[in-house]
Amino acid sequence: MLTKAELQRLKSLREKKHREELGLFVIEGEKVVGELLAAAFPFVELYATAEWLQQNLNAGRSLNAGGSEKPLRVTVVTPAEMERASHFPTPSRVLAVGRIERRPLERVELARGLTLALDGVQDAGNVGTILRLADWFACERVLLSPDCADLFHQKVINASMGSFARVRVHTVELAEVLTDAAELSPAPPVLGCDLEGDDVHTLGGLRDAIVVIGSEGRGLSAAVSAGVTRRITIPRYGRAESLNAAIAAAIVCDNLRR
Amino acid sequence: MLTKAELQRLKSLREKKHREELGLFVIEGEKVVGELLAAAFPFVELYATAEWLQQNLNAGRSLNAGGSEKPLRVTVVTPAEMERASHFPTPSRVLAVGRIERRPLERVELARGLTLALDGVQDAGNVGTILRLADWFACERVLLSPDCADLFHQKVINASMGSFARVRVHTVELAEVLTDAAELSPAPPVLGCDLEGDDVHTLGGLRDAIVVIGSEGRGLSAAVSAGVTRRITIPRYGRAESLNAAIAAAIVCDNLRR
Repeated sequence: MLTKAELQRLKSLREKKHREELGLFVIEGEKVVGELLAAAFPFVELYATAEWLQQNLNAGRSLNAGGSEKPLRVTVVTPAEMERASHFPTPSRVLAVGRIERRPLERVELARGLTLALDGVQDAGNVGTILRLADWFACERVLLSPDCADLFHQKVINASMGSFARVRVHTVELAEVLTDAAELSPAPPVLGCDLEGDDVHTLGGLRDAIVVIGSEGRGLSAAVSAGVTRRITIPRYGRAESLNAAIAAAIVCDNLRR
Repeated sequence: MLTKAELQRLKSLREKKHREELGLFVIEGEKVVGELLAAAFPFVELYATAEWLQQNLNAGRSLNAGGSEKPLRVTVVTPAEMERASHFPTPSRVLAVGRIERRPLERVELARGLTLALDGVQDAGNVGTILRLADWFACERVLLSPDCADLFHQKVINASMGSFARVRVHTVELAEVLTDAAELSPAPPVLGCDLEGDDVHTLGGLRDAIVVIGSEGRGLSAAVSAGVTRRITIPRYGRAESLNAAIAAAIVCDNLRR
């Protein structure tokens, strides 16, 4: 049973402003909720139809795999209530609420491992796809500039295919962070994709690096571009002017990891 | 001035059924129409506001760069008319109609060059992104199985960023084509991504190949999978279960071209 106030709150979480106010986000759909539960994401609330609950509990799914201290609060809702709470044309049978947690970035961590830093990547699908490939390539962390698509947007989490629960993400002022990283010893190289730079095929074996990825439309901002210490190029064999941001990130990661 | 019948026809072209009946497709938006005009795509009709026309002609843009035999028919429409014709929340200032042309695939061509073959890739953004990277990596052709996203859907053409006008695309029964390709001499290898196959990093220098890309949800169909002659693997370093179809295609292309 869903009260009017609960319904209102769930709907309000579709907007970033309300997510930030309440420190919560909502995610909807059997596939994505299933992926995050499988990845032991510690949801705080779950709204599901009796049918979904029965099927999933009978299939042995743990709803509280995250083992968070605050136990999951489960509410059984009717399909009619779900229809009102849902933002989908065909309402899903499950909807989950999680806490927005922002982990501080210790600057010294940047010296080690592979960091993907997104500068104004506004397409939610691209951000989610980059989380997924960061997970595939075992990137230690992903940094988002404040003008990237919101990490807690349904489309970002959907496109991440569960990697949202596994990848460490920090929202930071990117130019400042790059300035700080330059003072580390040894300072990690900051790689930026450019049309004229070192061939990405020569990079193999670089284990500690920050890779900055610009927005589709505008590329890197001037402040972030100033922090790049090594320009790299993905060789082009045909005529397209550029590659999609997530595609470029993937090719760089594959070349760094080999 | 837009007649009611013209308006109706433009709107009907949003649906695949009507596109096929009329052999035409419609595309909307200054960015995408501009990209295709720049790539000399031979549109047959253009609907634009007086303001857009004036700006573009004054900027020296050729509206008939394709030099098609049938000249472009230009109709000046008012912003109010555009609002009715548009499918966008904020109506664009230009809309263009092109002819659907399907080039037959000569089987013998498959022996040479790099072919990307998409098996049931239904996400329009992924298909467009793959056209763009096929253009970047100078793939000779892209094959689409009939159950892929429609090539003439606005989202496919948008995501291709102009590469729609440059890449040769054939819609074919993929399993049959692979059977035919196997009888060529020499037969091109048919590469399929799999979790257990040859490391993609060992493929460099393979110039003639067919790379099959499966759908996100279901992977390769059984019939297409039977035509694969070499299983390849993109090494995974982390925990994501899979990569996005376009990401996988890009990594394979980068490794084949190096």
